[in-house]
Amino acid sequence: MKYFFKNDYSEACHPNILQALVDTNSVQQLGYGHDDYCKQAEDILRSKIKNEKAGIFFVSGGTQANLLVISSLLKPFESVIAAQTGHIESNETGAIEAVGHKINLIPTDNGKITTEGIQKILDTHLNIPHQVRPKLVYISNTTEVGTHYSKSELEDLYQFCQSKNLLFFIDGARLSQAIAIPEADLSLEVIAKNCDVFYFGGTKNGALIGEAIIFNNEKLCEDFPYFIKQKGAMLAKGRLLGIQFLELLKDDLYLKLGEHANRQTQKLKNAFDEINTRFLTDSVSNQMFPILKKEHIEVLQTQFDFYVWKEIDSDFAAIRLICSWATTDEAVEEFVAAIHNLN
Amino acid sequence: MKYFFKNDYSEACHPNILQALVDTNSVQQLGYGHDDYCKQAEDILRSKIKNEKAGIFFVSGGTQANLLVISSLLKPFESVIAAQTGHIESNETGAIEAVGHKINLIPTDNGKITTEGIQKILDTHLNIPHQVRPKLVYISNTTEVGTHYSKSELEDLYQFCQSKNLLFFIDGARLSQAIAIPEADLSLEVIAKNCDVFYFGGTKNGALIGEAIIFNNEKLCEDFPYFIKQKGAMLAKGRLLGIQFLELLKDDLYLKLGEHANRQTQKLKNAFDEINTRFLTDSVSNQMFPILKKEHIEVLQTQFDFYVWKEIDSDFAAIRLICSWATTDEAVEEFVAAIHNLN
Amino acid sequence: MKYFFKNDYSEACHPNILQALVDTNSVQQLGYGHDDYCKQAEDILRSKIKNEKAGIFFVSGGTQANLLVISSLLKPFESVIAAQTGHIESNETGAIEAVGHKINLIPTDNGKITTEGIQKILDTHLNIPHQVRPKLVYISNTTEVGTHYSKSELEDLYQFCQSKNLLFFIDGARLSQAIAIPEADLSLEVIAKNCDVFYFGGTKNGALIGEAIIFNNEKLCEDFPYFIKQKGAMLAKGRLLGIQFLELLKDDLYLKLGEHANRQTQKLKNAFDEINTRFLTDSVSNQMFPILKKEHIEVLQTQFDFYVWKEIDSDFAAIRLICSWATTDEAVEEFVAAIHNLN
Amino acid sequence: MKYFFKNDYSEACHPNILQALVDTNSVQQLGYGHDDYCKQAEDILRSKIKNEKAGIFFVSGGTQANLLVISSLLKPFESVIAAQTGHIESNETGAIEAVGHKINLIPTDNGKITTEGIQKILDTHLNIPHQVRPKLVYISNTTEVGTHYSKSELEDLYQFCQSKNLLFFIDGARLSQAIAIPEADLSLEVIAKNCDVFYFGGTKNGALIGEAIIFNNEKLCEDFPYFIKQKGAMLAKGRLLGIQFLELLKDDLYLKLGEHANRQTQKLKNAFDEINTRFLTDSVSNQMFPILKKEHIEVLQTQFDFYVWKEIDSDFAAIRLICSWATTDEAVEEFVAAIHNLN
Repeated sequence: MKYFFKNDYSEACHPNILQALVDTNSVQQLGYGHDDYCKQAEDILRSKIKNEKAGIFFVSGGTQANLLVISSLLKPFESVIAAQTGHIESNETGAIEAVGHKINLIPTDNGKITTEGIQKILDTHLNIPHQVRPKLVYISNTTEVGTHYSKSELEDLYQFCQSKNLLFFIDGARLSQAIAIPEADLSLEVIAKNCDVFYFGGTKNGALIGEAIIFNNEKLCEDFPYFIKQKGAMLAKGRLLGIQFLELLKDDLYLKLGEHANRQTQKLKNAFDEINTRFLTDSVSNQMFPILKKEHIEVLQTQFDFYVWKEIDSDFAAIRLICSWATTDEAVEEFVAAIHNLN
Repeated sequence: MKYFFKNDYSEACHPNILQALVDTNSVQQLGYGHDDYCKQAEDILRSKIKNEKAGIFFVSGGTQANLLVISSLLKPFESVIAAQTGHIESNETGAIEAVGHKINLIPTDNGKITTEGIQKILDTHLNIPHQVRPKLVYISNTTEVGTHYSKSELEDLYQFCQSKNLLFFIDGARLSQAIAIPEADLSLEVIAKNCDVFYFGGTKNGALIGEAIIFNNEKLCEDFPYFIKQKGAMLAKGRLLGIQFLELLKDDLYLKLGEHANRQTQKLKNAFDEINTRFLTDSVSNQMFPILKKEHIEVLQTQFDFYVWKEIDSDFAAIRLICSWATTDEAVEEFVAAIHNLN
Repeated sequence: MKYFFKNDYSEACHPNILQALVDTNSVQQLGYGHDDYCKQAEDILRSKIKNEKAGIFFVSGGTQANLLVISSLLKPFESVIAAQTGHIESNETGAIEAVGHKINLIPTDNGKITTEGIQKILDTHLNIPHQVRPKLVYISNTTEVGTHYSKSELEDLYQFCQSKNLLFFIDGARLSQAIAIPEADLSLEVIAKNCDVFYFGGTKNGALIGEAIIFNNEKLCEDFPYFIKQKGAMLAKGRLLGIQFLELLKDDLYLKLGEHANRQTQKLKNAFDEINTRFLTDSVSNQMFPILKKEHIEVLQTQFDFYVWKEIDSDFAAIRLICSWATTDEAVEEFVAAIHNLN
Repeated sequence: MKYFFKNDYSEACHPNILQALVDTNSVQQLGYGHDDYCKQAEDILRSKIKNEKAGIFFVSGGTQANLLVISSLLKPFESVIAAQTGHIESNETGAIEAVGHKINLIPTDNGKITTEGIQKILDTHLNIPHQVRPKLVYISNTTEVGTHYSKSELEDLYQFCQSKNLLFFIDGARLSQAIAIPEADLSLEVIAKNCDVFYFGGTKNGALIGEAIIFNNEKLCEDFPYFIKQKGAMLAKGRLLGIQFLELLKDDLYLKLGEHANRQTQKLKNAFDEINTRFLTDSVSNQMFPILKKEHIEVLQTQFDFYVWKEIDSDFAAIRLICSWATTDEAVEEFVAAIHNLN
């Protein structure tokens, strides 16, 4: 079988998680997230973000986290502002609209939004009550096209949102990979201090399932358990989520896994740079979009599995390469060798 | 009080309608649209579009008609394709998303969409089941910016939709005004033959309330009465809607009213042309968007009431002028005189 | 044609309303309820209920009013408590569930609920967050089966609701008929003082369309216009609603019409009493449910149109008779004669 | 810590499942349920129910399964018929209403519905289009109160549903426990042959998470993946679900676990029988509701953890005892001893 550079969920989970599942398997615990592991993981997260009153909830996946957070924060006539490339816009089968909310889109080439983009949405939504009321800004960090927001960019966006009475929500499906970018100057605490709510992704960073939703303001989530239950997101055996986050947080395993994913991807990038490859976006995270001759893509496809992302012209297309917490050195070396052989 | 050129619903209703309400007032009738007037109006409409099996339903307003039609035709994961200027996108407070559906937007300057625009949406929605399935194309005729689709344009769009398994829905809030454009080559029959469903607007053409929703394929509306009732759109005294459409259809009153509205607007346009005014869009219907010096706008505002539509630059802005079935010759002449005085 | 005792919306509107429509027809007015007539009607209502800060909104019909009020007041996981006979439960095609809310039902024979019934719902909804949170109590006055709540009954219910942190909403589709019952000791002011929100029905008391929604606490309706627009309930020519309520309020016309409807119905009731007829419910309003031999029903059906309501046994069934603001003395006298001829 | 007889999800998973997770952990697999394990589990299920064309989908939990199945099968104005004790009515925070559908309730003492109960719902929903259209019948087997439907009862219900054009859906959160009741005469094949769709529960029978939704008619689930994704129920690492069902199906492990759970519960029941205890329902599955003196309940609570289910009178209450696939002989023996000591 060809090695997958398709995504960061091709393998199951980090061995530490597996071991923890084995160790705790026969212990009786309360259901629905009231188990000891969830409580411990919540406490560690509150400590890491230095906010004792944060509201923390574990759910299974990213689309679920997004629809829960957004539907719990918005009134029926309020909308969410997002990049045109945003996951909620393009890859969630209309989940946000299905819970009743319009997404106001900001055009973007690099997957990121700016305060100017937000302001333009506000300026064109003044016809009360004939238009939705934009109320929440959604970003992903890293973004869907591998780029990232730095600490200062998040600070600017959050200050702007606060000044406009907008809530700010960060989709952190790949938050560990963002934090693992040294020049981004991020940490869980920095993230938490610069938004109203974010989720910290497990699925794409070594967990079987699991995203930790973190509300920095407890008042925003008083009723959140009702939403979790009503949308079918409350696991009877919530322990499965708690155990995994406990392990990811232990000795900052999440960060090491994010660093690994980024590092492996950058090795591929360096190899492409050596042959003067262009890229669709300027990424230093674990997603990369090199633009290749179609015949070269075919060559690479004989050895590896990955997505052809976007037609550029009749000769060229961009591919998407993703390395994960589990991508092996051997696989990367083989891919690097294959790149060197392209010319 | 200043004369309104703000919209086409500033006056109540055409005198014929008023007289019919007086004449029928004390007759006992069945409720919920089973009255004699609704039935007669339906029969006339079926005859005019030459389709005995058309499903016809009267509702109160445009947003209501749009959300009813769209929610009745789409499955929960299906989306509607519309122009970025579309009424459902910009002026209905998220009514379509509130019933669960995403709107896929086509950028446009003139309020109109093309088959290329639709195709581009289809091309970017191939990632099943991670994206919505585009299923219905929505247009307005005339459009929200006063432009119109001609017979041949509608034919092209409908053929394209049929070839792609897309439904085609025409919002006819100002359909009479479109049909009243001679070069458009339209009629109720032409409209009906070139879409799956449309609505024929009364509110903006001389009725107190009322839009007639017309399904050309009876299978598309088998369950439509359930939707009308569930969304709160079924009037106990449905006779109010039937009586009005009966009058609008009698001797093609709807067409005469549309012609009047267009003609009055074009008189204003001619006056602006004489002073070499530019326009935001190229309209021959009853909406017009002249671009004026801001000082000129202020002058006109002392005499007339209208919307300033869009900032163009620091010196210029576009205004919206609308004439209706009721706009008097005197008011138009005064406005023409005011235009001539601008220089 | 047979005379209708089927419902209270068989005729169009009271002549005063018709005249007012004629008188105001050509006046230009702002759209969407900002017209002078709506404002005047709102002011009169605020004065009648002695609450300057009440939020007042006019919509077209009862199902629409119910779904708007309930969806605007409840969070997604909150429910409404209603009688099993409640209009929202049995006659609105799931409109409340379609906007996302469960109805918790209280069994009842006479269409009325009690504090004990409400308490029982609360007692069985303690498993947080695995159950909905009951938050609003819905009643109709008069009820769907012709019975009514008196002033003291409303006071008890509202005090109970307040003590339990429940909102209290009165569906007043037939509120005029309730107020017209002398022993009920009701008035618009009494109603307003004993609930959080109610609607005052026009459709079933002489208007073409129209229900006035009245929030006694302005904070409950800050965003209500967004809901009205989003659900398709905002009329461009809102004047149509304002004009009608102005007329209904003038010289307490609404009350005179309610009294007429009740009085005509009671004439029928007296005639049935004379032949010792049993009734399904004990009604003194404009709905009545006599239980008749099926052969007698057939006799009456040869002359009059009405609903057969409920099979009682193989020999008997209950019918529903409704008189309206427009029911003539002649029709009532004929029916009374027919009753006398039954034996 | 006190031993839990609270529910059947207090422990994590069966050791075979844990071992399979260990064994497959590092294998690269496609995401979103396209992995080899899901495919194998689907094939085994199709073979067991002797239906090669069944549509099979794995999701995380019961509320999720219920809302997905019901929302995918019903049109917006259609309703589901259920027992008043049904899980979708009482324990899912309005999940079904939140996706827009009314639940029509059948009163019941033993958690089961009958064809008479269904017919009564149909008889009171004839007022088209003013009422919802009942379209799907929902039952649970075993029921929420521990009772079960036998093969012949299911046959009767399904035939009735088919004759009335109703779909029939079986919630099998505890289906293994039902199949494990010898006198019920059930099997996966019997279940599949007697409904349109059912789900086969993993969570309450030894899996970490997981319910297998099985459509017997492939046409009913053509679009189901869109629903799974849109509602946030599609796991990136779908392998987690496939692996677990593979193990549960291997050598009919699911049945052995169901038998164990029932057997342990019946041991408790026998002990209660010896002291002439009454029960709330007549259960032979793994849920049991003995009615005890409150002082006896307090005594048992000092040693064991379980729910007090329902107040009976001032002296007595019913408790709920549940044994699971994991309940040990030691714990059961201790409880039996405690029962014997009650007198």
